[in-house]
Amino acid sequence: MIQIVPLLGIGEIAPGCDLADELGAAVERQRYAVEAGDILVVTQKIVSKAEGRFVSLRTVSPSERAGKLAAITLKDPRIVELVLRESSDIVRAAPNVLIARHHIGVVLANAGIDRSNLGTPDDETVLLLPADPDASARKLHAALETRWGASPAILVSDSFGRPWRQGVVNVAIGAFGLPSLIDRRGELDRNGRRLEATQIGFADLIASAAGLAMGEGSEGVPAVLVKGAHADAPCNNASSLVRPLAEDLFR
Amino acid sequence: MIQIVPLLGIGEIAPGCDLADELGAAVERQRYAVEAGDILVVTQKIVSKAEGRFVSLRTVSPSERAGKLAAITLKDPRIVELVLRESSDIVRAAPNVLIARHHIGVVLANAGIDRSNLGTPDDETVLLLPADPDASARKLHAALETRWGASPAILVSDSFGRPWRQGVVNVAIGAFGLPSLIDRRGELDRNGRRLEATQIGFADLIASAAGLAMGEGSEGVPAVLVKGAHADAPCNNASSLVRPLAEDLFR
Repeated sequence: MIQIVPLLGIGEIAPGCDLADELGAAVERQRYAVEAGDILVVTQKIVSKAEGRFVSLRTVSPSERAGKLAAITLKDPRIVELVLRESSDIVRAAPNVLIARHHIGVVLANAGIDRSNLGTPDDETVLLLPADPDASARKLHAALETRWGASPAILVSDSFGRPWRQGVVNVAIGAFGLPSLIDRRGELDRNGRRLEATQIGFADLIASAAGLAMGEGSEGVPAVLVKGAHADAPCNNASSLVRPLAEDLFR
Repeated sequence: MIQIVPLLGIGEIAPGCDLADELGAAVERQRYAVEAGDILVVTQKIVSKAEGRFVSLRTVSPSERAGKLAAITLKDPRIVELVLRESSDIVRAAPNVLIARHHIGVVLANAGIDRSNLGTPDDETVLLLPADPDASARKLHAALETRWGASPAILVSDSFGRPWRQGVVNVAIGAFGLPSLIDRRGELDRNGRRLEATQIGFADLIASAAGLAMGEGSEGVPAVLVKGAHADAPCNNASSLVRPLAEDLFR
């Protein structure tokens, strides 16, 4: 049986806050002993907040290109400027739609720039993704290992929209200590036939499972412990889930 | 806490098999009382098998269009013919790639036609998706309600590849008795700001969570009970997760 345990009582996270200490205390409050195979899933939002990834729009001067894209997308040119700075590529631009390929490789709306639940009454502040979410996961893992002598695997999650399907789902943008992508190419089925689904987005499955315990509204839970989801495969980080551009059928 | 319970001991499912009886017995073997909010997740494969959705390739005569697509995709022309019959649209065709929009609206490789783990040594047999997976879910729900006086919500899952991301994830192709798509448009965040993620693919989150307990290999578990994943929203079926063509940015 797999258990998905919401970690309650985590307060507002401010820049410079010791996130590992907040998360460690939250796990200890639940009186859960960390066991091998446990995965601690943390929202991008609290990682970004702890890392101080806030930007005041008052400091942003839109380029000419940002101005043109803002006219197409009907968005604030300063937000569009930040999207361009955070991205390697604009995938789609249309009224109220701006989908970008972030420098970390993920494709998502507005390059993940976030204006909701920032914990600030200042409407001119936005929050960027962590600069390197896999590194954020690795650092949290190291800090919790120091605290407990062993750390759960760490996953940094965000919620993405998708082509062809309605509704956002949670995916992994950073990971350490788990097989983000499980590669079963070459394995056979019960009848000796080669398996058709050869690679499994394990970290995305974990992120979605954790998302069930997170909620999206004002009562959001920013961290979740997943227990019992064992995967017998080598560890790799969340960037393994990014499809190489050469294999992207949508270019 | 949310619990994901694999249902063990389900044998090979043959055409005409009473799937509700098999599933009901599997839940009873686990000694789990079904409670409000429980969701029973069942793989597309056993639903299709019970519904007899097998096709012998020996009976399939490829059309001219199938022959041309087979030359592009390097696939068996008879499989391509079945993909065309099952689909309203071919989304991408390239060597070893044939992505189709199935008549039920989902976009997936080979229109979901499956050749692995069919439980038959006959290499010339394939398995189609259920003709109407939402209706399959509704029928299972009715049969379990008759058995127990109350039924868990039912979800029929499959595993899909995705643009831009590596690895398949489990999604919902049929559902009854749960909010497949949660619509929170108009709700506000803690600071009174409109939420940016306004629609949540709840049934896809459930399918992915269940996928963690299913596995993909020879030891696959075809049904999983999800307990404690409450969603306070109106029920709608899995077709709600299909993005309307007019909103599809990839046409």
